Amino acid sequence: MWQHAPMPDTPPPPVRRGPGRPGYDQETVLRRAVELFNRQGYDATSMGDLARELGLTKSAIYHHVSAKSDLLAQALDEALGALEAVIARAGADDHRSAYERLRATVSGSVEVLIAHLPAVTLLLRVRGNSEVELAALERRRRIDDDFAAMVAAAVDEGALRTDLPPDLISRFLFGMVNSLAEWVRPEGRYDATVIAASLTTMVFDGLARDGRAG
Amino acid sequence: MWQHAPMPDTPPPPVRRGPGRPGYDQETVLRRAVELFNRQGYDATSMGDLARELGLTKSAIYHHVSAKSDLLAQALDEALGALEAVIARAGADDHRSAYERLRATVSGSVEVLIAHLPAVTLLLRVRGNSEVELAALERRRRIDDDFAAMVAAAVDEGALRTDLPPDLISRFLFGMVNSLAEWVRPEGRYDATVIAASLTTMVFDGLARDGRAG
Repeated sequence: MWQHAPMPDTPPPPVRRGPGRPGYDQETVLRRAVELFNRQGYDATSMGDLARELGLTKSAIYHHVSAKSDLLAQALDEALGALEAVIARAGADDHRSAYERLRATVSGSVEVLIAHLPAVTLLLRVRGNSEVELAALERRRRIDDDFAAMVAAAVDEGALRTDLPPDLISRFLFGMVNSLAEWVRPEGRYDATVIAASLTTMVFDGLARDGRAG
Repeated sequence: MWQHAPMPDTPPPPVRRGPGRPGYDQETVLRRAVELFNRQGYDATSMGDLARELGLTKSAIYHHVSAKSDLLAQALDEALGALEAVIARAGADDHRSAYERLRATVSGSVEVLIAHLPAVTLLLRVRGNSEVELAALERRRRIDDDFAAMVAAAVDEGALRTDLPPDLISRFLFGMVNSLAEWVRPEGRYDATVIAASLTTMVFDGLARDGRAG
């Protein structure tokens, strides 16, 4: 789950590739762009801002990036692809109960959120202002539907308590996972596996010590 | 908890008070301003925008509002005051255990968030760009501290499970409650008491049916 290195505090120096002009590999350009989008908003960021961020001239930036929306599309695809993989992995395991698949999906979503924090943060802010954003929202909606179906399957199996409306359960779980983007930092006190395990334990097993009545 | 009426879909017509000039009471001005701030961002909203929203001229708006920051301060005070009251009420009840006080605070915070949704939404977006915002962040920090102290007291009492770090519990609970602002709507399917009770049951008692092993 930790394929992507955590964001360093200071950006790495640009790779020099010609006399006086910094060169960047595509991954570095993408990472720096996503940081900038998250800092000042995608819509408010111009190609000129991006050039300044990378220490390039306004014309040199086009050697690296054909359009701002390409970077957005790549970042959203990174986040969505990682979330879809969690759902697909859980669905592929026939030996597990619906309940176990749901737990694995919640835990896996937390790990993906932390491993791909900048891209997921960008995804969570998408409001549908362009074709790229609308397509991402549509993919996100399918993930939501798959997730809601998993909750329903766990309810049908009799594994979940019956006094909570299943659609509220889906909303709560999504909200809970997504809210981590507000405060989790890669250099934070707890690593992703501890956060994922703790959140999953809280929502499925409850904070109250066993035997305590609600 | 439901002192404030839910936002109507269509704004009420302005009260006419002079020939041709719409007059508004202070509460209506505040409510419409907060809606506008949430829609297009506080920093991006000018007094001219607010005048337009209210159908007033740029000079007439100053009969109603001396400064944009006054409206922000009032809205943030509404949200913070309501949250502080939940904490104070829980703290005042000596007959209850720390665990019961914590549960009541979580549930009460959900009800406050829904009852004061526009003001709380504004509060959650405050980033500290002015004196008013910094003061609000400071008050919010005190609420967070009081809440963390309640979690610690419930841990000390032996009421909470011991395999989760208490500071993560505080973060999770805050994130969970705050995430409701992303999707709860006053005209939604479930009323505030159902949402508050369901969320509280999930986080304290867990989604899993009793007797199921994690």
